[in-house]
Amino acid sequence: MLDRIPTGGPPYLYDLVSDYPSRIGKGLRPALCLATCGALGGNQREVLNSAVAVELFHNAFLIHDDIQDESLSRRGADTLYRQHGVGIAVNIGNATNLLALQCILGNRSMLGPQASWLIVQETESMMRQSLEGQAIELGWIRDNVCDLRPRDYLEMCLKKTSWYSFIYPLRIGATVAEGVQSPNRFCRFGWYLGAAFQIQDDILNLIGKYRKYGKEIGGDLREGKRTLILIHLFNKCSAKEGRSLRGILAKPGSERTSSELEWMYDRIVQYECIEFAKRAARQLAGAAFLEALTAFRGTPDSEYKRFILETALFVISRDR
Amino acid sequence: MLDRIPTGGPPYLYDLVSDYPSRIGKGLRPALCLATCGALGGNQREVLNSAVAVELFHNAFLIHDDIQDESLSRRGADTLYRQHGVGIAVNIGNATNLLALQCILGNRSMLGPQASWLIVQETESMMRQSLEGQAIELGWIRDNVCDLRPRDYLEMCLKKTSWYSFIYPLRIGATVAEGVQSPNRFCRFGWYLGAAFQIQDDILNLIGKYRKYGKEIGGDLREGKRTLILIHLFNKCSAKEGRSLRGILAKPGSERTSSELEWMYDRIVQYECIEFAKRAARQLAGAAFLEALTAFRGTPDSEYKRFILETALFVISRDR
Repeated sequence: MLDRIPTGGPPYLYDLVSDYPSRIGKGLRPALCLATCGALGGNQREVLNSAVAVELFHNAFLIHDDIQDESLSRRGADTLYRQHGVGIAVNIGNATNLLALQCILGNRSMLGPQASWLIVQETESMMRQSLEGQAIELGWIRDNVCDLRPRDYLEMCLKKTSWYSFIYPLRIGATVAEGVQSPNRFCRFGWYLGAAFQIQDDILNLIGKYRKYGKEIGGDLREGKRTLILIHLFNKCSAKEGRSLRGILAKPGSERTSSELEWMYDRIVQYECIEFAKRAARQLAGAAFLEALTAFRGTPDSEYKRFILETALFVISRDR
Repeated sequence: MLDRIPTGGPPYLYDLVSDYPSRIGKGLRPALCLATCGALGGNQREVLNSAVAVELFHNAFLIHDDIQDESLSRRGADTLYRQHGVGIAVNIGNATNLLALQCILGNRSMLGPQASWLIVQETESMMRQSLEGQAIELGWIRDNVCDLRPRDYLEMCLKKTSWYSFIYPLRIGATVAEGVQSPNRFCRFGWYLGAAFQIQDDILNLIGKYRKYGKEIGGDLREGKRTLILIHLFNKCSAKEGRSLRGILAKPGSERTSSELEWMYDRIVQYECIEFAKRAARQLAGAAFLEALTAFRGTPDSEYKRFILETALFVISRDR
């Protein structure tokens, strides 16, 4: 991936594009893309471009997402916009997106015009889903929406997290292997896997260790993010507590006091919201595992296939 | 263009994508794209997609640029990020970019795989140039660079303004008409035209009328933008004034006082920097006109061709 980032050019561009990719991430998304292609008999060399694109799109998403959420830290260091200002960080996010797109366009010489065009179309869909998911989440915060149900959360996850992180890598890995449009058999697996992944992320954000998780603990509470945990709290707490919660969330995140955040956290403990989220994540991971078995039913056993199946367990047992 | 923006979807997305495009702009960029295609004998219906993409890319650029420059107003109203917050505005800029890309990808069914692929490649180059131009300008402000020469400014203009505003519309208009990769004959015309356009923009930012220009007057001074006017001031003022100027520009834009801005403006008047910029814009517009004559030498006379030639005069006589 780092090889695809140009050196040279003006300062505050490619030098900073390589910042997030140089911080150690899980690499789960490109790994799934490579493994899907491998499990289906495809060539690892032919899918490399697409796997790099997957991880670059992810990094671009993180750079802009950190601005949007006013996050303080990412992968154990200050977020890019805090280091270099919002203006430069917006540009770096755009440049990272462009590099990802270049990888996708670069598929043409290796895969030929037809398969590469299918992947371009998959990329376009993925970008649209992600933008819509991001809009849903930002809109909930902006409008202080407090009457959400778990199904709203799962739909938001599908668009914001699952599509670009799991459905897209699975689908384009398959297209590289098979040369045809990916059938829809990966969608449920990717959706449930992404939802379990996101719920685990919400849990780690509350009770994880900064040294492993790399983002500031409790950031979601400060940002007023509509996690499954918060949604469950709204559904379980008393009417009076609900009004207090709504009032706290009505303010901009930067104005929430630490005693307010503590009060929120105590209510989350009181109503066992983290346990609820853990249960939901386990159920979704189980559902994802079953869907993976179905999606790869006719696929011969391989290290690749086993890796894919194991991601269902990984996403809920991870601590980073 | 507005027909290409989806209706429906989540709030804070397509509803806001249509905001800037609904404010009245000049439409110069798509007009040049349509006219180039027309002048070269191409079909207006076949170039429409590309012309819409040009204007959508421009709007996406403005949305992010307003965040980056902390601009207050755009086309006579509050900038998008001031109305809806930075987070949502970043997302709207990305969505607008994606819609532009969709138009470009949509060329395939009308123009066939070959010509549409050339336009995709042109689009990729254009995006790269714009990102680099933006990085150069943001870096100058961030590092408080004070020893720039007019040639640095012209190079920055080439990347930041000329490429996406003029070179790209000219080149893809020609590719739609001729079905082959655009020769490089439009590059000089587009470069000089864009530089004249940008200098006129810098002038209007200082002495224009808000009601016509639509952006806050004096915004560039507050932002510390390295305009040709400011560069000339640094080259002409005394060493002592240069040190004062550097000190004023070392602070974040929001901390520059109105008396400091007035002092800067008075020095600009004293050293006739606006007259210098006006002369430079006239010379560049003249050079652009000659380059247009050369680039379209073999092209028969038409309303399209006359429109293109007249843009050289338009960009320096415009008051909006």
